[in-house]
This record gives sequence, structure tokens and C-alpha cells, in this order.
Amino acid sequence: MKIGILGTGIVGRTLGDKLVELGHEVRMGARQAGNETATAWASAAGGRASAGMFADAAAHGEMALNCTKGEVTLEVLRQAGADHLAGKVLVDVTNPLDFSHGFPPSLAVCNTDSLGEQVQRALPLTRVVKALNTMWCGIMVDPRRLPGSHLVFLAGDDAAAKSSVAEVLRQFGWQPGEIVDLGDITAARATEMLLPIWLRLYGKRGDGAFNFAIAG
Amino acid sequence: MKIGILGTGIVGRTLGDKLVELGHEVRMGARQAGNETATAWASAAGGRASAGMFADAAAHGEMALNCTKGEVTLEVLRQAGADHLAGKVLVDVTNPLDFSHGFPPSLAVCNTDSLGEQVQRALPLTRVVKALNTMWCGIMVDPRRLPGSHLVFLAGDDAAAKSSVAEVLRQFGWQPGEIVDLGDITAARATEMLLPIWLRLYGKRGDGAFNFAIAG
Repeated sequence: MKIGILGTGIVGRTLGDKLVELGHEVRMGARQAGNETATAWASAAGGRASAGMFADAAAHGEMALNCTKGEVTLEVLRQAGADHLAGKVLVDVTNPLDFSHGFPPSLAVCNTDSLGEQVQRALPLTRVVKALNTMWCGIMVDPRRLPGSHLVFLAGDDAAAKSSVAEVLRQFGWQPGEIVDLGDITAARATEMLLPIWLRLYGKRGDGAFNFAIAG
Repeated sequence: MKIGILGTGIVGRTLGDKLVELGHEVRMGARQAGNETATAWASAAGGRASAGMFADAAAHGEMALNCTKGEVTLEVLRQAGADHLAGKVLVDVTNPLDFSHGFPPSLAVCNTDSLGEQVQRALPLTRVVKALNTMWCGIMVDPRRLPGSHLVFLAGDDAAAKSSVAEVLRQFGWQPGEIVDLGDITAARATEMLLPIWLRLYGKRGDGAFNFAIAG
């Protein structure tokens, strides 16, 4: 599948590497053409990887992954272009973290709204699926590095879009029973509101090699 | 130990039954003297159980458990009396659920404040420990009914108070490694913000016989 990645940070590069390894054609988008990080990533990742601007990555993919920081997400999506994402699946991996008052960050939006919903409202013709935002990227693409069963949550209004995302997750190594569909895009509130406890646990442990699970 | 329970709902009665079974002297407090639920509970629970008003329960205990609904918690604590709770440990089991806009409820406070912090600010001489608010009461007092390891979170400013609460949790059957101290009372934000996903999972499952765990 052709997949666009918006963002050149560690989350985008980690997901990009895994998707290329799985045989997908991946284009990483950055704010400016010739972005060194995106170009270097594409060069290292091989022939199925390419780099361009946000709009190039959005136009390239049948699916796109939003791996930008929450504070710039809506501006990046404007640059990517609603037309380039219309009808497509957009996986929103982002969290609305607000570091302006120090660590741990608060959420810039929560409780009665979410960044996932803001993204869906900004792109009404795009099928947004909130996913993968509740864990460190090393777990996203290699869930079996952790012992036992643990969970990845989906939220979105389009069932077929969620099925497409679940298929990619299975390629990453997630078991069907570990992929939990929480409902429509308003459930993004629930997964984004996991970040405060994730950050406390991360601060206590000093590493991100853990994930949420359910007993019972 | 003498323990006061504020609230006559299922959470208070379940915790009260278990504490009496463990040999504690438990007084359940209600808004009014002669409250039928509290009186019936005390009668059924036996000689170590008694019932009274909120202030009676607060004065009785070396430790008190706040098992009221979030929307009335601060008013109940006023009735219980700051003097009766001064110097004591208050376990805040409550969540600030706001059902005024239907199900699932939103949180009346979150992100940059929490009900746990509001309780601590209302009772500056009391050692508040947020605990047990992230699960159904059937799990609180019988963690071993679920398979595997799962977690109960503590948040509070007083280390000795958290140790006292942890000792009661061990009496309930929690293993030391399952009792996770997340830090000071501001960590109550993190545990109260678990409620949205707890409620989604509850809605999806149709039962509360589950709890949060961590893989890794």
C-alpha cells in the first residue's frame, strides 16, 4: 500500500521504517522540500521510501499517518491539504501535549473534546482513526517485545477505515484480541486522557518500554 | 483499626463489609442520623460495625474513606468536619463524574486540577491519599478474583499516609508490586483521567470485572 507519513520525528521514522520493511511504499512529508531528516530517512530506508513536503506525502498515500506534535497538527494538516486527504484513512497518532507549564505536560484539549475530533472536524471528507497514541513508538511497531497481552485502542467514525488500520496493526504483530475498537471518534478523548498516567509511569520507570493491558 | 466510611452507596458498603471481615471497627456515616441504608448495613455487618452521621464516622476513625459521589464530596466533607479529620488519613475513592450531559459522563474537573486536590485543599490538616478510584468496588476488596497482576494507584503528599493505605490494600489481597505510588496528590489528575477509558471499556464489556494492568 502507498502510505504517507506526516512528520519527521522519531514516531514517524519508526513507523516509516517498519512500513517499508513490510513492503509498503512510504513517503515522509516535512514542512519544507529537502528537509534533511526526511531525505536522510528515505535514503537509509531504501527504494520504497521517499521524501517530500507534507502535501506530497498526503497526495502519495492511500493512507496517511499523522505523526506531528499536537501543537502543530492542525497547521500541518492545512499544509498537507484537505483535498489530498479526502476519502483517505488518516491515522492520528498524535497527543495534544502542552509543555508550556513544564513537566509533566497537561493536555491542550480534553474531556469534552479531543485532538482526534479536532482533526476529524478539520478534514470532514477524511476517515480519521485515532490509534497508537497511548504508547512509545518502539512498542507500536514491535508489540511482541513486551511479554503477555497488551492493548492498542482505535477510535473513529468509519468502520472500514478502522478495519484497514487494524490490518496494518496485525502486520506490526498485534494480535486481533489486542486491537480494541472503543467506538466513534469521541473515544479519542479516552485514549488521549491516558497520557497523564502514561507520563507518570514513564517518569517513575525512566523508560517507555511498557504498555497498558487489562486484567479480567 | 477504627475506620470511618463516608457514604452509604455500593462502594462504601463493599469496603465496609471487607474491613469488618478483616477485624476493623467501621462506622458508616450518612447525611442524616438513622439513615436506613447505613443502619441496615451496620446491623448485617455485625458487632464491629456501626452507623451514624458523616461527622460521627469522621470522628470515629483513625482513617476515613471518602466513598461519596464526586458531585457532593466537598459538601459531605464540610458536614464531616475538618476538625474531625485533622491529622488523619482520608482515602479519596471518589471520581468527579458529571452525568449532566448523559452517558458517558465527562469529568467535572481534570487536567490541571483534580477532585483529589480539591479534597486536600479543603482539608489542609488531613493527609489525603487518592486510591482505588480506577476500578469497580468488587475488585477493590478482592483483587485476586482477576487473573494475573493488575494495579492500584496511590497519589498523596504524605508518605506515611500512603504506607498506611498500602497496608490496608495488602489486607485486601493486593500484592506489594501491584500497589503503585504515582507521587504527590497532583497525580490524582492521572488516575481520575482513567475514568473515560474505564467507562468506554465498561460500556463495551457490560461488566466491571476488569482492571488496568501494565505489560513490560
